[in-house]
Amino acid sequence: MREIRVLMNGVTGRMGMNQHLIRSILAIRAQGGIPSASGEMIMPVPILVGRPAAATRLQRLVDRLAPEHGALETTTDLDAALAEKRNEIYFDATLTQTRVDGVNKAIEAGKAIYCEKPTATETAVAVALARKAEAAGVKNGVVQDKLWLPGIRKLKYLIDTGFFGRILTVRGEFGYWVFDGEHQPTQRPSWNYRKEDGGGMMVDMFCHWRYVLDNIFGAVKSVSALGAIHIPQRRDEQGKPYACTADDAAYGTFELEGDIICQFNSSWAVRVRRDDLLTLQVDGTNGSAVAGLRDCVVQHDAQTPKPVWNPDIDSPIDFFEGWSRVPTRDLFDNAFKVQWELFLQHVVDDTPFRWNLMEGAKGVQLAELGLKSWQERRWLDVPPLG
Amino acid sequence: MREIRVLMNGVTGRMGMNQHLIRSILAIRAQGGIPSASGEMIMPVPILVGRPAAATRLQRLVDRLAPEHGALETTTDLDAALAEKRNEIYFDATLTQTRVDGVNKAIEAGKAIYCEKPTATETAVAVALARKAEAAGVKNGVVQDKLWLPGIRKLKYLIDTGFFGRILTVRGEFGYWVFDGEHQPTQRPSWNYRKEDGGGMMVDMFCHWRYVLDNIFGAVKSVSALGAIHIPQRRDEQGKPYACTADDAAYGTFELEGDIICQFNSSWAVRVRRDDLLTLQVDGTNGSAVAGLRDCVVQHDAQTPKPVWNPDIDSPIDFFEGWSRVPTRDLFDNAFKVQWELFLQHVVDDTPFRWNLMEGAKGVQLAELGLKSWQERRWLDVPPLG
Amino acid sequence: MREIRVLMNGVTGRMGMNQHLIRSILAIRAQGGIPSASGEMIMPVPILVGRPAAATRLQRLVDRLAPEHGALETTTDLDAALAEKRNEIYFDATLTQTRVDGVNKAIEAGKAIYCEKPTATETAVAVALARKAEAAGVKNGVVQDKLWLPGIRKLKYLIDTGFFGRILTVRGEFGYWVFDGEHQPTQRPSWNYRKEDGGGMMVDMFCHWRYVLDNIFGAVKSVSALGAIHIPQRRDEQGKPYACTADDAAYGTFELEGDIICQFNSSWAVRVRRDDLLTLQVDGTNGSAVAGLRDCVVQHDAQTPKPVWNPDIDSPIDFFEGWSRVPTRDLFDNAFKVQWELFLQHVVDDTPFRWNLMEGAKGVQLAELGLKSWQERRWLDVPPLG
Amino acid sequence: MREIRVLMNGVTGRMGMNQHLIRSILAIRAQGGIPSASGEMIMPVPILVGRPAAATRLQRLVDRLAPEHGALETTTDLDAALAEKRNEIYFDATLTQTRVDGVNKAIEAGKAIYCEKPTATETAVAVALARKAEAAGVKNGVVQDKLWLPGIRKLKYLIDTGFFGRILTVRGEFGYWVFDGEHQPTQRPSWNYRKEDGGGMMVDMFCHWRYVLDNIFGAVKSVSALGAIHIPQRRDEQGKPYACTADDAAYGTFELEGDIICQFNSSWAVRVRRDDLLTLQVDGTNGSAVAGLRDCVVQHDAQTPKPVWNPDIDSPIDFFEGWSRVPTRDLFDNAFKVQWELFLQHVVDDTPFRWNLMEGAKGVQLAELGLKSWQERRWLDVPPLG
Repeated sequence: MREIRVLMNGVTGRMGMNQHLIRSILAIRAQGGIPSASGEMIMPVPILVGRPAAATRLQRLVDRLAPEHGALETTTDLDAALAEKRNEIYFDATLTQTRVDGVNKAIEAGKAIYCEKPTATETAVAVALARKAEAAGVKNGVVQDKLWLPGIRKLKYLIDTGFFGRILTVRGEFGYWVFDGEHQPTQRPSWNYRKEDGGGMMVDMFCHWRYVLDNIFGAVKSVSALGAIHIPQRRDEQGKPYACTADDAAYGTFELEGDIICQFNSSWAVRVRRDDLLTLQVDGTNGSAVAGLRDCVVQHDAQTPKPVWNPDIDSPIDFFEGWSRVPTRDLFDNAFKVQWELFLQHVVDDTPFRWNLMEGAKGVQLAELGLKSWQERRWLDVPPLG
Repeated sequence: MREIRVLMNGVTGRMGMNQHLIRSILAIRAQGGIPSASGEMIMPVPILVGRPAAATRLQRLVDRLAPEHGALETTTDLDAALAEKRNEIYFDATLTQTRVDGVNKAIEAGKAIYCEKPTATETAVAVALARKAEAAGVKNGVVQDKLWLPGIRKLKYLIDTGFFGRILTVRGEFGYWVFDGEHQPTQRPSWNYRKEDGGGMMVDMFCHWRYVLDNIFGAVKSVSALGAIHIPQRRDEQGKPYACTADDAAYGTFELEGDIICQFNSSWAVRVRRDDLLTLQVDGTNGSAVAGLRDCVVQHDAQTPKPVWNPDIDSPIDFFEGWSRVPTRDLFDNAFKVQWELFLQHVVDDTPFRWNLMEGAKGVQLAELGLKSWQERRWLDVPPLG
Repeated sequence: MREIRVLMNGVTGRMGMNQHLIRSILAIRAQGGIPSASGEMIMPVPILVGRPAAATRLQRLVDRLAPEHGALETTTDLDAALAEKRNEIYFDATLTQTRVDGVNKAIEAGKAIYCEKPTATETAVAVALARKAEAAGVKNGVVQDKLWLPGIRKLKYLIDTGFFGRILTVRGEFGYWVFDGEHQPTQRPSWNYRKEDGGGMMVDMFCHWRYVLDNIFGAVKSVSALGAIHIPQRRDEQGKPYACTADDAAYGTFELEGDIICQFNSSWAVRVRRDDLLTLQVDGTNGSAVAGLRDCVVQHDAQTPKPVWNPDIDSPIDFFEGWSRVPTRDLFDNAFKVQWELFLQHVVDDTPFRWNLMEGAKGVQLAELGLKSWQERRWLDVPPLG
Repeated sequence: MREIRVLMNGVTGRMGMNQHLIRSILAIRAQGGIPSASGEMIMPVPILVGRPAAATRLQRLVDRLAPEHGALETTTDLDAALAEKRNEIYFDATLTQTRVDGVNKAIEAGKAIYCEKPTATETAVAVALARKAEAAGVKNGVVQDKLWLPGIRKLKYLIDTGFFGRILTVRGEFGYWVFDGEHQPTQRPSWNYRKEDGGGMMVDMFCHWRYVLDNIFGAVKSVSALGAIHIPQRRDEQGKPYACTADDAAYGTFELEGDIICQFNSSWAVRVRRDDLLTLQVDGTNGSAVAGLRDCVVQHDAQTPKPVWNPDIDSPIDFFEGWSRVPTRDLFDNAFKVQWELFLQHVVDDTPFRWNLMEGAKGVQLAELGLKSWQERRWLDVPPLG
């Protein structure tokens, strides 16, 4: 058994707690760890870190988890915890504004770094962080969970097996209707819609689209983006009206390597008439696919109908038929957990792990360029980083 | 009975023959004409016009139609036909390149003008044509058939009844897979894919999107467009390979009056997984709709689900349910015929008819600006015409 | 933690025990109380009250609940319990005939009052009770549970969001087939069908319809009612035949503020071919809805078909399609519990609570007027109370 | 072959032409007539009668029918036609205002009388007409087509076979949404909504409900009715706004012989969530049925579920299941034609025919009493006629 102590900073938040602590680290513990190259099982040991002000919330969390997961360590002294040599990994899921500080300290303390996206609010800072980690020789990674969504894995399978022929286009549709809180309580945090609090669709989602496009289809070469504040006023968690200052929708067009055009709409003001909350339609010379979060349907050239435009009669073709479902041939584990396992093996066994801080910086870059394109009303090239 | 003689130039082509001659003019004749303000029935009398070289094809067409429609007049001498005072309307469905000449002559001869789009290949020419008609005091109109598609009429009904609340966005998806002729004969004319022959998606379709957007949602204020030649080589009607020089796809974003954002993809290289060959999704504060050629489905605020992002389980919501079909409460006549009837009444009774040559010039303008935006890689404003 | 002691009188009956004790008060305890303005949790402490004759039944109830809910206090001396200052709330779910006495005593003892409907059998008495509570300055409330039925909440949402346009009509259908006990044991208590025991459809249900109509649609201005004894003889709980002396059905028409007409049938002699045991169909200029206990379907103007009367062919329209379900976007708690929580917060924090004894008296009034309208065979106006 | 000449007055109108001339008289001719007691075939010969001003419309109708039905006789001189002895029957489907005159003349000319409802606008006049016919000894009948709707025939079958046990109640729902012409052209004539032109729901439909109730369930003894003008303004056939002065909805309650209570809503401002445009639910001690225009479903005591009121869970019972369809065991002919055949046999063979002018007067009476009840806001008894 190879125990590895992980400082987990910011796991009292919803995402940190559910996806990283419970469904990833504790789930890995519950299954008995993961195999290392040496044959030993790698067993992560979480130490929950919080600011002194969060002491009570940390304790309540530990109490709640105790019956099922036993006593978990906590600390409110990050510096002391970083000073302890036996703590090998520093994980950060705090607010974007505090992340840079925490990661900086951890690099200086020689820890392996793993953190949520975005790694910073400005590209320059994100790149500096990545370089610093590189210079310090510490292993590092950034969360890129959507790469392990079952629907995206199936898409990757189709690409790897040459299903599409030459890929021509990717059409992305993301989002759903977020109620404004007037008659129906809203289902997303109010800070998401305030620029001054770090909200905004481009800042939030272009990080994701960057690594999905780069890793699955081809490197993003240029961007044209338009943002919008469709709903100018919403009500917050207390029912109080507030002005929306951040974009609640982003209409992006990207040019990718390989002459692929990607058109991607992201919106919190759209009603969903499509297969899933996120869909990616890929069209290639030999076939097309539409992937959702978990499922993926395909239409091969052999299945492609030959429609005729005749508005005088009802269409003789049902355009939803003639697509076939890609079977789920393997069980797909939680996406966050899969990436955690890869990172733990990377730390212990030095296996490859390409989703590092520099890759994370690329997401920050695309969000920054998107906002600039919106402002300058023109296409912008995406320069190489570093 | 008020007979009105219509010179029909270019009806040996597929569109001119089917939509304008057979389904419009001859269908109006078959139903006994259309009522005029005076109580008389307006009865159009078609005179089929063609170049001398087309004499045989004209004769074949007349022979084919004779059993059902009686003997139709023909001529290959356009000038002589225009000189006859009793011929009141000149209709042009010839190739774009020859249209300007024909319409010019007809204006000079004092005829009422009705013609297919685009009215010219350059905005300046289209505007000049419109001004000339205006100066000459001749009535004039341009085909804008999509305004009378049943699906678009239903969308218009929803707007008129205030269904949407404030409209936020319009998402258009147009097109389908056009086979390249390699293994499967293609289903569209090869000139469409050659720039030198007047082909290209933007030139073809931005004319349509302009009047649909202007008339149904709000005037187009600015455009950002990207074209692509996804399939660089196809085989023509004779099976001979040729290089595609015109855009086979256009990715356009438009800003409309009323702060409406319209994102519109048009492509001959896409496989269809949506309700119809053309779909328009409209999202408003109170409800959304997706219209196809004939049908339209709606989701009102009252039906809007409140989804939660959880990729670990299959979505508990089927996003295609929760939409309801707008019933077909009235019969919809052929869109071309409806506009013809309106034009004939305009000519005879001076009823309003807003779809004139200047409106047609706006379509040419948007196509031109789209091509320029593509080239200059930036947003362009749409200046007022005239 | 703010404990608040609640005297619960009449909870050995089915409704008092299940809805008020177990699903409301004990459920609130199990969830850790409810938050007060001060940040403390309000924790109700039930003291079960019964007549001396009911001592054994009380004990049996306490024994049954003990394993899950711990030892509950009981008393058979109401006067002594009312004399204790620490008992702050008096709740009454006894028979209508004894309710007035209990509530009167509790007002005199300065307790906050909460009770079941009807608050009395005569309007004058119900009003006097309300005035007495007001004069004594004690907080007071009456159970109006149907306001928190999920189906009614959805209807309220539709009204608040303006779904209906102007509301024209409300059609209510309530009831189901109650077997007469001849071959199939009956499913409702026999006293319900005996006037001399306080039974009767109008007395029972017009209380409910009053607060539903007043609160959701508009104040009831006038009433025309017809009662009936459709089944003149039934068999009681012991299988003994008895004469039915109270109305088992009531056909009411109400005029509401806002020119809304409400037609409402309530019957224990009807077989159910509708969405639920209680349905309310609301028709407005822009749309209609049919609500049941938990679900609600809507038909917007946009979905409304345009039928043609033609009995010679089967209807081409299925009139159950073209309605869409309002999604359940939030969890709905038990209706009784929701109102209890509001009442407890009202007592502790002085938050608004409009469903008081005077509102309860309005229900008694409508039942009384309904019976009088039946007798006098004419419309009666509903005078303001107090 | 026994030819019988029928003067048909008012068959240029929609109802007269379609239902009486084409689907009844001409259909009877097409099938070779109907058998008489003597074995001869009774063959009606229509003579189309119109005012001189309607000469052209009459001629157009005759021309249109000629290819299929041969040359039909017409006349614009009613007096002359009535003077001819060989014309045996006078049928009147003119506007209500002119009907009395025509029928009066025909009685005086000794013709057998058959006419549309209502037979007059006032009960006294309708009764006088009936008495005059009786005194003159002429056979007479009034159209009561709904008695021969397939759905009503099936209901009659159930009553005749004792299916219901004792009938307790009849619930009628009639009507559908009639568009106001603002955005959607209306589907009913504008005069229906103007009192000054003879419009109004009670005047139109209470005639029908009277004969349906009297003939199928039991004589109407008393009535309480409330009318409403839900939609105060509509647009007419020319799109011009007009004020609605007649009731577009009628909420009626009727007491029938046999202690049956009938509650009947009729409305042009209701969206349909029921089996058909007209439904009658009949509840009896042994079973219930719901009839539409053509179909009828039943729930026998043996199928009746025993529901429990529990809003905390979704209903375990689907209340639309548990009903069974009454099979269509006989072909049902057009309702108008069936009654015509019965009347022709009555005239030729003196077979019984109970649906005479006095029965028709009862319909006028119920409409008149309904309007009076609405005005006086009370129940009114229905006195015997004659």
